[in-house]
Amino acid sequence: MNPQANSTILSFEALRDFIEAALSSQGLPQADAYKVATLMAEADMQGSDGHGVIRLPMYIKRIQAGGINKNPVIKVVHERAAMAVVDGDNGMGHLVVSHAVDLAIEKARQCGVAWVSTRFSNHAGPASLYARKPLQHDMLGLYFAVGNANHLPPWGGMDMLLSTNPIAAGIPTADEPPVVLDMATTVAAYGKVKAKAKRGEMMPEGWMIDRQGKPLTDPKRAEEGFLLPIGEHKGYGLALIVGLLAGTLGGAAMGREVVDFNADHVTVTNTGQAILVIDLSAFGDPAVFKHAVDALVKDIRGSEKLPGVDRIWLPGEQSHERRQRYQSGGIPIVNALVTELQSLARELGIAPLI
Amino acid sequence: MNPQANSTILSFEALRDFIEAALSSQGLPQADAYKVATLMAEADMQGSDGHGVIRLPMYIKRIQAGGINKNPVIKVVHERAAMAVVDGDNGMGHLVVSHAVDLAIEKARQCGVAWVSTRFSNHAGPASLYARKPLQHDMLGLYFAVGNANHLPPWGGMDMLLSTNPIAAGIPTADEPPVVLDMATTVAAYGKVKAKAKRGEMMPEGWMIDRQGKPLTDPKRAEEGFLLPIGEHKGYGLALIVGLLAGTLGGAAMGREVVDFNADHVTVTNTGQAILVIDLSAFGDPAVFKHAVDALVKDIRGSEKLPGVDRIWLPGEQSHERRQRYQSGGIPIVNALVTELQSLARELGIAPLI
Repeated sequence: MNPQANSTILSFEALRDFIEAALSSQGLPQADAYKVATLMAEADMQGSDGHGVIRLPMYIKRIQAGGINKNPVIKVVHERAAMAVVDGDNGMGHLVVSHAVDLAIEKARQCGVAWVSTRFSNHAGPASLYARKPLQHDMLGLYFAVGNANHLPPWGGMDMLLSTNPIAAGIPTADEPPVVLDMATTVAAYGKVKAKAKRGEMMPEGWMIDRQGKPLTDPKRAEEGFLLPIGEHKGYGLALIVGLLAGTLGGAAMGREVVDFNADHVTVTNTGQAILVIDLSAFGDPAVFKHAVDALVKDIRGSEKLPGVDRIWLPGEQSHERRQRYQSGGIPIVNALVTELQSLARELGIAPLI
Repeated sequence: MNPQANSTILSFEALRDFIEAALSSQGLPQADAYKVATLMAEADMQGSDGHGVIRLPMYIKRIQAGGINKNPVIKVVHERAAMAVVDGDNGMGHLVVSHAVDLAIEKARQCGVAWVSTRFSNHAGPASLYARKPLQHDMLGLYFAVGNANHLPPWGGMDMLLSTNPIAAGIPTADEPPVVLDMATTVAAYGKVKAKAKRGEMMPEGWMIDRQGKPLTDPKRAEEGFLLPIGEHKGYGLALIVGLLAGTLGGAAMGREVVDFNADHVTVTNTGQAILVIDLSAFGDPAVFKHAVDALVKDIRGSEKLPGVDRIWLPGEQSHERRQRYQSGGIPIVNALVTELQSLARELGIAPLI
């Protein structure tokens, strides 16, 4: 089970430069291509490999099909002191959300707390990238997004009106790794189902059900069933609330309006995200907060363990360790993906990845 | 399974007046007693019967033991345009949180969004009461609280460092009942375990585990085990983040600092809650938002159903129906509790409940 078996090790810079070249070749302005490439390579570097360079071929397909605005005018359409709605003009999601988070940080510095919603955004990679961004300012981030394909019905139903709508949170610490939660509101993200199918493995019971309400464990039959929410009706409720906050509130798509961006490369997705930024210094001395989190982290890590448990992890701790390891030792990219990227390079006429 | 069997039907007013008299008899100022009594009776009226008048004997016990400040000076200790930290001075939680929510509504009207944290608060009843409060102002509420007893260990651990830390959300609608989510981050709240024990019933697998990690289904053995979080490590992560937001951020108790208020009636609990209020009018025309939510609600309710499912519910819809039914027809209070309240009335020298 060596995660680096069948993989090629690449440096962060090599990965970023390749993505940048690919996006530039399609007419994205160089500064924008660099920004998106950096965030995508950061996703791979923290082990969010379902949201990093693996998405490049699909992004390129969408750009080529005219489904992305290569020169968006990202602008604020509603604003008050502690909030804004940012219209992404159908640009790359990474650019739109980065814009939103930067604005929220600036507003939180003034008001203590700020909320920025996006509309006409697109898929932006892993939620944790954006929830983490306020950390360097001694601020706390909470991030909500509408997933880009509906695989979740309401509890008891069969119409897939909801997505895996994730919640992410980034909490500053003093000496410990930051506490970073990034979770879909379904038991498994749909990407995990596709990965099981690729590897020819069965899914555990509890990930999906079929149209009879029976467990569906063969990932090749995924189209015949639905994802299950965490905690049954509770996860359904959470997915709904996250969608209302990240989508409906900002005027973005939700429910039946959500475009399945795996199947449709042309229709404007009107993706919505929302970021809440909280400036610790408004609540007292940030050092007091951060040391309190550190103490809690140590208590949790030091908890007596259940039989058979080696270690108790904090949310974000495994990503943190991976980021440090990959930063110095390079990022493993599975060979099947490397091959796909090499053929993409030939197609786009850019330098190969390796 | 008639929920009104073995129950006595009481009007909202009778219940409220009884609670008010009980609290007044212990020296709470009359306006405060009335406010707390109204919120407690509202809890019963929406069917949150684990958080209504059932808590009165314990509140009285805590007041008599000196564990509650009957004349608190509730004040803002940190403030910026879109946030505040409210110190509840160890007053009744209902008073402290009401104060916080009113302040957040006022600030959201100016800034579009506002966050208010509490410290030195106490148990305040069901989370949904407070998440619902902004609705009448065409505002949206998100509420987080630290539970008042730790029954949840970190995932893989046995030290009960976390509570059922609930999340609640109130989302305005046009003609539909508001969407109101109120959920513990554990599969079952601890009150449900105690109710099973009282009725001599077994718990389903998945609610609790014992110290071997095996399912614990006998609620009489609850002390030997722990609650399980929803979605395994995900619910653990959520409970932790909710606790950091509702507790640590505002300077309230979290982790090992949490006082078990069922066992200890004297120690200051330093309970923390947090409310986020979002003013719809800052995001565009509130009517557009509310009609979009209505349309989504109708799509969800009208979804094709799984075999054996009668009806698809929206979060908060069952409470809404119950509230309307109990408002006109009265609130059923189980007779065992009525007996307990009658003996409390004699003890306090106030008029009996019936």
